[in-house]
Amino acid sequence: MLKDANDLCVVLVGTRNPLNLGAAARAMSNFGFLRLRVVNPYALAFRQARSAVGAAPLLAGAQEYPSLAEAVADCTLVVGTTAIGHRELHHPLRRLEYGARLIRKELGHGQVALVFGTEKTGLSNQDLCHCHWLININTRQRLSMNLGQAVAVCLYELVRAPRTVKASAQDPAVRATAKEVELISQALLQALYLSGYVNPIAVSTTEERLRRLVRRMQVSSSDASLWLGMLRQILWKLQTTNSGT
Amino acid sequence: MLKDANDLCVVLVGTRNPLNLGAAARAMSNFGFLRLRVVNPYALAFRQARSAVGAAPLLAGAQEYPSLAEAVADCTLVVGTTAIGHRELHHPLRRLEYGARLIRKELGHGQVALVFGTEKTGLSNQDLCHCHWLININTRQRLSMNLGQAVAVCLYELVRAPRTVKASAQDPAVRATAKEVELISQALLQALYLSGYVNPIAVSTTEERLRRLVRRMQVSSSDASLWLGMLRQILWKLQTTNSGT
Repeated sequence: MLKDANDLCVVLVGTRNPLNLGAAARAMSNFGFLRLRVVNPYALAFRQARSAVGAAPLLAGAQEYPSLAEAVADCTLVVGTTAIGHRELHHPLRRLEYGARLIRKELGHGQVALVFGTEKTGLSNQDLCHCHWLININTRQRLSMNLGQAVAVCLYELVRAPRTVKASAQDPAVRATAKEVELISQALLQALYLSGYVNPIAVSTTEERLRRLVRRMQVSSSDASLWLGMLRQILWKLQTTNSGT
Repeated sequence: MLKDANDLCVVLVGTRNPLNLGAAARAMSNFGFLRLRVVNPYALAFRQARSAVGAAPLLAGAQEYPSLAEAVADCTLVVGTTAIGHRELHHPLRRLEYGARLIRKELGHGQVALVFGTEKTGLSNQDLCHCHWLININTRQRLSMNLGQAVAVCLYELVRAPRTVKASAQDPAVRATAKEVELISQALLQALYLSGYVNPIAVSTTEERLRRLVRRMQVSSSDASLWLGMLRQILWKLQTTNSGT
């Protein structure tokens, strides 16, 4: 999680839907941003959201303000969010990928407010006056996002690993040795021989193709012993039934 | 938006809440992924979501499947999503930032399925058997995300910073589809059953382990038919000798 996450507060202005309040709080909790401020939420929505499961502690600690000005009074950087489209904007508009980088730089030095408008109309022109600049999530045809999802995506971008992290420690399975691969090839070849798959005239060609095939599996060492165990059991069955007839 | 977005389908398994279905569809629409597949959704939820505003056209075109196997049958890469934590995972687990890069590489070459489990419990172990690997969104204390938000964040990462680097021409082998891989698994399982390898008490565990094993082969389409041919020959031999005794 982000080191200076406590320097960021999410500000929701005039939210109507309790589910959206809950969803925003859950995303905050998910990404480690625990300071929520609400401006003029619909009273009922706020009460309902507070009693919702999951995001409860975060919502219980949310601070309520009568105006955006008061909600961001102690902040050194105020960033609004917008789906743009219809309105003429007088603010610098930055793509989330870039804007998040600027926000991260500010954290640790001052308080940052990330402001989301109402579900229907977003931030009003009056709200925009309190913002230093705006962030925009690049969507298809500039269609606006669901509020809870927009909060989730913005916060995800803030905590996102700047340089893509390589796979987890679970990933690098130890490759099977050439000897292990060879044992698989031999067992498989023998099973195919007993099953009549191998044409005696073309044995050597089949053998070569089969070795390449098995090699292409790029099997791990632990998988190699699994394969070998299975093939030996099949072999055993083929041999006992063959000798019985 | 992503050039090969049509090669990706989002697969929702057992979704219960119509609001989540609607939210997932809206995020898809926002980020330009228009192919939705649903596996066993709660009938009522699906009906309600379909009549919801906003995501309607996308949901109307959603395809319904009785099982995950059928939903991903035509896919060459199946990626599950997980909040991990409780379960012991047998799959490579990749952070979203890195996993999304791998998915982007596959798009344009084959169909990719991005699979999300139920709200409560995520993907079952049986579902996981059909996945090549798993993606995880790095959250605080590994708390699981809301379904609609998880879909939004994953798709955002896929379209984020559009450096659509095409995969190199070095990787020309066409991947086997999930259906081809499934046929191999079934043939192998049957052979093992006839050979007495499979303990009747532990059939389902063995089946799961075996599916994962076969999936790890990352077999190409042409190799898949080779394997299938060999296994069927072995099977035929095992069956004829079994019935002969």
